[in-house]
Amino acid sequence: MKRKVCIVIISRANYGRIKSVLKAIDNHPDLELQLIVGASALLWRFGKVIDIIKQDGFKINTTVYLTIEGENPTTMAKSTGLALIELATSLENLKPDIVLTVADKYETLATAIASTYMNIPLAHTQGGEISGSIDESVRHAITKLAHLHFPATKLSAERIIKMGERPDTVFTVGCPSIDLINEISTDLTTDIFEKYGGVGKGLDLSKPYLLVLQHSVTTEYGNGYNHINETLKAIYDLGIQAIVMWPNVDSGSNEIAKGIRVFRESHKNLDFMHFFINFSIEDYIRILNNCVCIVGNSSSGIRESAFLGVPAVNIGSRQAGRELGRNVIDVGYDSKEIKDAILKQLEYGQYKRDYLYGDGSAGEKIAKILAELNEIEIQKKLAY
Amino acid sequence: MKRKVCIVIISRANYGRIKSVLKAIDNHPDLELQLIVGASALLWRFGKVIDIIKQDGFKINTTVYLTIEGENPTTMAKSTGLALIELATSLENLKPDIVLTVADKYETLATAIASTYMNIPLAHTQGGEISGSIDESVRHAITKLAHLHFPATKLSAERIIKMGERPDTVFTVGCPSIDLINEISTDLTTDIFEKYGGVGKGLDLSKPYLLVLQHSVTTEYGNGYNHINETLKAIYDLGIQAIVMWPNVDSGSNEIAKGIRVFRESHKNLDFMHFFINFSIEDYIRILNNCVCIVGNSSSGIRESAFLGVPAVNIGSRQAGRELGRNVIDVGYDSKEIKDAILKQLEYGQYKRDYLYGDGSAGEKIAKILAELNEIEIQKKLAY
Amino acid sequence: MKRKVCIVIISRANYGRIKSVLKAIDNHPDLELQLIVGASALLWRFGKVIDIIKQDGFKINTTVYLTIEGENPTTMAKSTGLALIELATSLENLKPDIVLTVADKYETLATAIASTYMNIPLAHTQGGEISGSIDESVRHAITKLAHLHFPATKLSAERIIKMGERPDTVFTVGCPSIDLINEISTDLTTDIFEKYGGVGKGLDLSKPYLLVLQHSVTTEYGNGYNHINETLKAIYDLGIQAIVMWPNVDSGSNEIAKGIRVFRESHKNLDFMHFFINFSIEDYIRILNNCVCIVGNSSSGIRESAFLGVPAVNIGSRQAGRELGRNVIDVGYDSKEIKDAILKQLEYGQYKRDYLYGDGSAGEKIAKILAELNEIEIQKKLAY
Amino acid sequence: MKRKVCIVIISRANYGRIKSVLKAIDNHPDLELQLIVGASALLWRFGKVIDIIKQDGFKINTTVYLTIEGENPTTMAKSTGLALIELATSLENLKPDIVLTVADKYETLATAIASTYMNIPLAHTQGGEISGSIDESVRHAITKLAHLHFPATKLSAERIIKMGERPDTVFTVGCPSIDLINEISTDLTTDIFEKYGGVGKGLDLSKPYLLVLQHSVTTEYGNGYNHINETLKAIYDLGIQAIVMWPNVDSGSNEIAKGIRVFRESHKNLDFMHFFINFSIEDYIRILNNCVCIVGNSSSGIRESAFLGVPAVNIGSRQAGRELGRNVIDVGYDSKEIKDAILKQLEYGQYKRDYLYGDGSAGEKIAKILAELNEIEIQKKLAY
Repeated sequence: MKRKVCIVIISRANYGRIKSVLKAIDNHPDLELQLIVGASALLWRFGKVIDIIKQDGFKINTTVYLTIEGENPTTMAKSTGLALIELATSLENLKPDIVLTVADKYETLATAIASTYMNIPLAHTQGGEISGSIDESVRHAITKLAHLHFPATKLSAERIIKMGERPDTVFTVGCPSIDLINEISTDLTTDIFEKYGGVGKGLDLSKPYLLVLQHSVTTEYGNGYNHINETLKAIYDLGIQAIVMWPNVDSGSNEIAKGIRVFRESHKNLDFMHFFINFSIEDYIRILNNCVCIVGNSSSGIRESAFLGVPAVNIGSRQAGRELGRNVIDVGYDSKEIKDAILKQLEYGQYKRDYLYGDGSAGEKIAKILAELNEIEIQKKLAY
Repeated sequence: MKRKVCIVIISRANYGRIKSVLKAIDNHPDLELQLIVGASALLWRFGKVIDIIKQDGFKINTTVYLTIEGENPTTMAKSTGLALIELATSLENLKPDIVLTVADKYETLATAIASTYMNIPLAHTQGGEISGSIDESVRHAITKLAHLHFPATKLSAERIIKMGERPDTVFTVGCPSIDLINEISTDLTTDIFEKYGGVGKGLDLSKPYLLVLQHSVTTEYGNGYNHINETLKAIYDLGIQAIVMWPNVDSGSNEIAKGIRVFRESHKNLDFMHFFINFSIEDYIRILNNCVCIVGNSSSGIRESAFLGVPAVNIGSRQAGRELGRNVIDVGYDSKEIKDAILKQLEYGQYKRDYLYGDGSAGEKIAKILAELNEIEIQKKLAY
Repeated sequence: MKRKVCIVIISRANYGRIKSVLKAIDNHPDLELQLIVGASALLWRFGKVIDIIKQDGFKINTTVYLTIEGENPTTMAKSTGLALIELATSLENLKPDIVLTVADKYETLATAIASTYMNIPLAHTQGGEISGSIDESVRHAITKLAHLHFPATKLSAERIIKMGERPDTVFTVGCPSIDLINEISTDLTTDIFEKYGGVGKGLDLSKPYLLVLQHSVTTEYGNGYNHINETLKAIYDLGIQAIVMWPNVDSGSNEIAKGIRVFRESHKNLDFMHFFINFSIEDYIRILNNCVCIVGNSSSGIRESAFLGVPAVNIGSRQAGRELGRNVIDVGYDSKEIKDAILKQLEYGQYKRDYLYGDGSAGEKIAKILAELNEIEIQKKLAY
Repeated sequence: MKRKVCIVIISRANYGRIKSVLKAIDNHPDLELQLIVGASALLWRFGKVIDIIKQDGFKINTTVYLTIEGENPTTMAKSTGLALIELATSLENLKPDIVLTVADKYETLATAIASTYMNIPLAHTQGGEISGSIDESVRHAITKLAHLHFPATKLSAERIIKMGERPDTVFTVGCPSIDLINEISTDLTTDIFEKYGGVGKGLDLSKPYLLVLQHSVTTEYGNGYNHINETLKAIYDLGIQAIVMWPNVDSGSNEIAKGIRVFRESHKNLDFMHFFINFSIEDYIRILNNCVCIVGNSSSGIRESAFLGVPAVNIGSRQAGRELGRNVIDVGYDSKEIKDAILKQLEYGQYKRDYLYGDGSAGEKIAKILAELNEIEIQKKLAY
C-alpha cells in the first residue's frame, strides 16, 4: 500500500515553497498525495491560489476556510485555533501516514500541532533558519514538534541538531522553491497586465523595473503603515517603474494595505507603478528574474533571488538573521537608505548564481526520503 | 500602575504546580493577578478544581469551557484549537502585561501560542525537563515560544540555554509545587472518606497504604487499558491497602478509566482499594506524605516525592528522562516487575529529603522577578 | 445523476428515529446517501452508536467530534457552535443536494443552520410537535428554516402550516421510528446482560420488569438530581425488576447521572435494578415491547409505546404537550404519584396498538418524495 | 439590584437599529446595560463602528472577533458557529438577566441560540417582518426562540402571534431606528468628504444627489456582480451626483464589492460618484434626508425613508414582502427599470412623513417594558 503524505497549502507563498514536492510525491510510485487547501489560499483578496493549484492538475481532498478576519494579533491567534480544530477533523478523516508542513506561518503551526497530537509523524521544511517576526519563534517551536526535518541549508541543519534533534532525522535537501526555477524558462513572455489585471496603467517591462513586496512584521504590529510608506516614498523619488504587490495575510497586513491605498490616493503621476494581488508561481519567478532589483522584506528576495542573482534591497527586521547571498543589501525603514541601496544595486547589476538555498533537487530528495523511510518513532526525546 | 500577570489554570495538577505563584503574585504590591480557569478545572468528572480555587480565596476573571469530549488524539488536538480561540478573546479583553504558563499540557500550549501571537511576553515554568508522552515535544515547543523561563532544576536550565535561549532570560527557581509542602502541616488529620467520598468501603490510613496514580501516555494511545491492568493486578496480588485515583483528561484517559472500571467489576474482595477523583492540593500532599509508596506515572512521584522522601515506583515511559531522586525505582508495564519494585520500596522505607526540585521558595522568586523585570523584548532570536 | 441526500447522525436516539430513512435512501435508485456521524454517536460514554451504524452496513462519509464537555447550558450552546463550524466544512466538501435533519437536538439545529445558510434545501422530520425543554423552541425554529417538512402526525402537519409554511411543502408521513418495529421480530431472545454488560447482577426477563429512561429537562436545569431521585425512589419502593438507562447528552445530563450514581451507592439490595448505557435499536425495541411499563420522560414512551401498546408513565414537563395515545399516564416529579401510576398501569396491562405516530412506512415515503421532488425554491417566504 | 440587559452589536446597520434602546437602558434607573461588540463592527473594512460606539459614550464589556473570511455561504454558516461559541462564553461571564437581539443577521441568530440554550430570556426586535434573503428564514426562526417580541409594526405583531407566540409577549413599539431621526437635526452641515474621506473627487451636496446602497442577497449568491452592475449603469447613464456605499458583510458581499471596483476601473468620468465605507448613524440619516432619492436594497430605503419622506427605488428581492410606505417604487435588477424609476421619483419629489415604522419612542418603550416585566417563563410553548 502506498504511504499517504498529507500537505496543507494555505497561501500563495506556501504553494511556491512546496510545489515541487507535491509533484515529486504525486509521481512517486510508493507515495500517495493528500492535499488540504485552506486559509488565504481560498480567498479572493489574496489571489485564490486554489485556482492555480487546480490548473496545475493536483487533486484536492479537502478545502477549509479558516481565516478569522481582523489581520491583527488577536485574530492571528484565533485563526490558528480554528485551523487546529478543522485540520484535526480533516486528518482524522484522511488518515495520512505522514504530514508535511512548510516553514513558519500560523497554519503551519496548527498543522504541526494537529499532526503530532494525533500521533502522525510530522515532517517540516525550512527549519533552523533565523528571521524576525513571530515566525522566528514559531519555526523553532515546530522543529521541536517535528519528527523529520528538511532544512534548506547546512547551517540550518546544524542549528536543528544543536536544538536537540536527532541527527539521523535531519536531511539537508535545499529549498523546494529553487526547484521550480530550475525547470521553467525564466523569460517573461506573458502579458501580465492582461492576464492579472491589477491596478495601474501598465508598464513597459522591456525597460528596467523594480519588484516591491513588503509584508507586515507581526512583532512590530502598529508600525506597518509607516514602514510601507518609507518604501513607497523611496520608489516615488526614484521614479523607476515598479511592480508593487499587496501583502500576505499576517497580522498587520491591513496596515500595509492601507499604506499602499493612502499613498496611491495622495500621490499623482503614479503611472510608473502597477499594483498586483497575485501571480502564478512561474510568472512570479519570471517577473523576479527580469526585474533590476527586488525591494521589501519578502524571503524571495533572499532565497530565489540568491539563485537567480537578482539584486535585493532587504528592509527592516523581518528577515534579520536569515543567511544571505552576496546579492542582498540590508537597510532600515528609511526612505533615504532604501533609495541609496536601490541605486547601488542598479549600478552593480546582476549577481552570480548562488546555490546557498539549494540546487533544484529538493522535491525529488524529499519524496525519496519519505518513501524509503522505515517506520518513524512517534515518541520524540531531547537529544541531550 | 501594577504589572498585570495572567495565569490560566486548566486542571487539578496544574493548580498544584502554580498555586504558590498565584499567592506570591497576589501579595506582591507591584503585581496584579489575572486568573482564567477553564478546561477540566471546571468539570465534575475531573474534580472541579475551580471550587477549591475559590475556597482558596482567589478572584477568577474568566471561566471558559474548552474540552472537546472524546479523550483521544483527535479531540486533544481540537481542544487545543478551541482553547486557542477562546484564550485569545480572553487575553484581548484582559490585556495582561505578562502571561505565565505552566508545564506542558495542551491548554498550556494554547496559552503560549495565544500570548506570543498577541505580542504579550510569555513566561514558562518546568521548561527543559525531559519526559515521555507528547508532553515532551510540547514542553520544548513552548520553550521556543517563551520569553522568560523558570525551570525547576539546574540541568533543565542548562538544556533551555542549549536549545538556543538567551541565558539572561533563564531563572532557576525550583518547582512551585515544592513550596506548598514547605508551608503546610503534612499530617493527615482529615477524614478523607467523609470529605471526598470516592468509591469503596474506606481504608484504615493509620496502617500502611499505597497511593496509585496512573495517567495515559498519549504516544502509546491504545495501550492504556493494558497498562493500568498490570498495575492493578500487582496491587491486587499484594493485597496492601491502596488509594487509587482516576486519571486526568489526556488522550487515552478513557482507556485508563475503563481499565479501572472493568477491574472493579471483575474482581471481588476489593475492599482494600478506594477510588477517588480529586483532593485539595494540601490533602493530596498529606496523603502522599503518609503513604508507604506511590505507584504509577504521575510526576508527583518524582517531584513532590523526592522532597518528601516518599518511595516511588515509576511505571513505563511517561516520565522517561525526568531527573530522578534516589527515591524512584523505574519499571515497565508488567505486574510482576511492579510488584517486586513495590516490595523493595516497602522494605527500604522512607528516603531522605532531596532538594532536586527546589527548596520551597519558587513562588516568591518568580513573583519578584516578574515585578522587577525591565521591559521584555518581544522579538525573540535563536542564540546561535 | 443521483440526488445526494446528506444526513447527520449525532446520538443513539437520533439513529433510531431515522434508520429506516437511511435504508430507504440507500436502496433508492435515484438517491445517494451521504452520512455524517458525530457528537455523542462517537462517544463511549453514550454508547458509541457509530459501531452499530457500521455493523448495520452503512458507509460513513465523515466523522466529527463536536461535544464540548460540561453538559450544562453553556456547553450546550457552545457545542452547537462547534457543530455549525464543522458541519459547514463537511457540507462544503460533500456538496449534497438536500440535507435531512431529525427532530430538535442542538446538532439538529446546527445542521439546519449550516444547510440553509449554504443554500442547500433542508428537510426536517418531527416538526410541529409540542414538548417541553429547549427542544420545543428549537423544533419550531428549525421548521422556520426548513424547506420540506415530514411531520409524524396530522396535527403536527396542521401546526406547521399554521406557523406560516407552504402546505405543498408539508408531507405527513408518520415517524420513521415506527418503521423498525414493523419489520423486526419483537421477541427478546438475546441475552442482553451478556451482550451489553451494564452494571448490576442481571435480571430474570421472563418475569415482569420496568424500563426506566429519564433525561434532563434543559429548561429546568439544576433540578435533574431531584427528579431522577423521585423516580428511583418509586421503583425502589415497588421492588419490581427494572432496566435503568443512563441519560443522553443534554444539558443537565450530569445531574441525572449523578443522581443514579448516588442512589446506587446509598441503597442496598439493588439487585432488582440493572443499569445500561446503550442497546442496538432493535434490542431496545424488544426490551420496550416486553416490559410491563416504561417509566420516565423519553419520547419512546409516547411514540414507539403507542404503536406497541406498552403502558407508559410519563414524568414531568419534558413531553408536555406531545400528542398522547391511550397508553400514557402523566405524572409530576413525585415518587408517590409515580408509584401509583405504575401500579395503575400494571393493573391495566397491555394497550391496543395505536397508529398515532405512523403505520411503518415513513422511510419509504420520505425517500420517494425526496427522489421525485422538482427543484426546491431556496428562498422561503412566510405564507401570510 | 438592577436588571442586566445584554446587547450584542455586530455591524453599523445593527448599531443604528438599536442605539436609542442602548441609551434608554443606560439611562433607566432599574436597568444595567451590558454591551458586547463584535464581528464587522470591529473591522476596518466595514467601518469599525466600535469607534463610533465609544465616541457615543457607551461602555463596552467585551469585544470579540468572529468573522470567518470568505463572504460566501460556507463562511457565513461557520461565522455563526464561531459567534455561538464565543458569545456563550461571554454570556457565561456577564450573566445577564435578559438578552436583546436585533433583527435577522447571523450573529443575531448566534446570540439568540446562545441565550436560549443558556436559559436566559431573549428579547427580539424587528420580528414578524417579511423580506428576501436568508434573513427571512432566520428572522422567523429567532421569533420561535424569543421570549419577548418588540415588532416595529402592527402587521408584524399580528404575524408573530399567528406563528404561535403568546400575545402577552408581543409589544408593538415601532422601530428604534426612527427614534434617532426624531432627535437630531437632519440638516447636513458636516463636510463629509473631509470627515470620512472615501474615494472620489467630492460632490456638491447643495445640489441634488442620489444615495446608493445595495447589499448582496444570500439566496441569490453568485449574482451580486451583475446586480450591482445594473444599478451603477443606471446611475452612470443618468449622470446625477451619487454617494455610493460599500456593502455589508453578508455572503456575496465580495461580489458586490468587486462589481463596484470593476465598474470604477472600467468607466471614465466618474467624478459625479463618491464611494464611502461608513458614516456615523446621525450623518447617515442627514445624508439620507437630503438626498433626492435612495437607490438599492437597503432596508433604510423603506424604514427611515418612510418617516423622512425620502423617495426610494427598491431593487430586487432583498426587501420583497416588507411593508412599504408610499415613497417606494419596486423594480427588478435592470438598469432601464432602475433609471426610469429614479426619474419618476425625481419628478415626484419629497413624500409626506409616514409613521408606518414608528413615531420615535421605541427605545423608551422597550426600556420601560424590560424594566417593569415580571419574571419571564423560560419554557416556551407553541400557542396552538
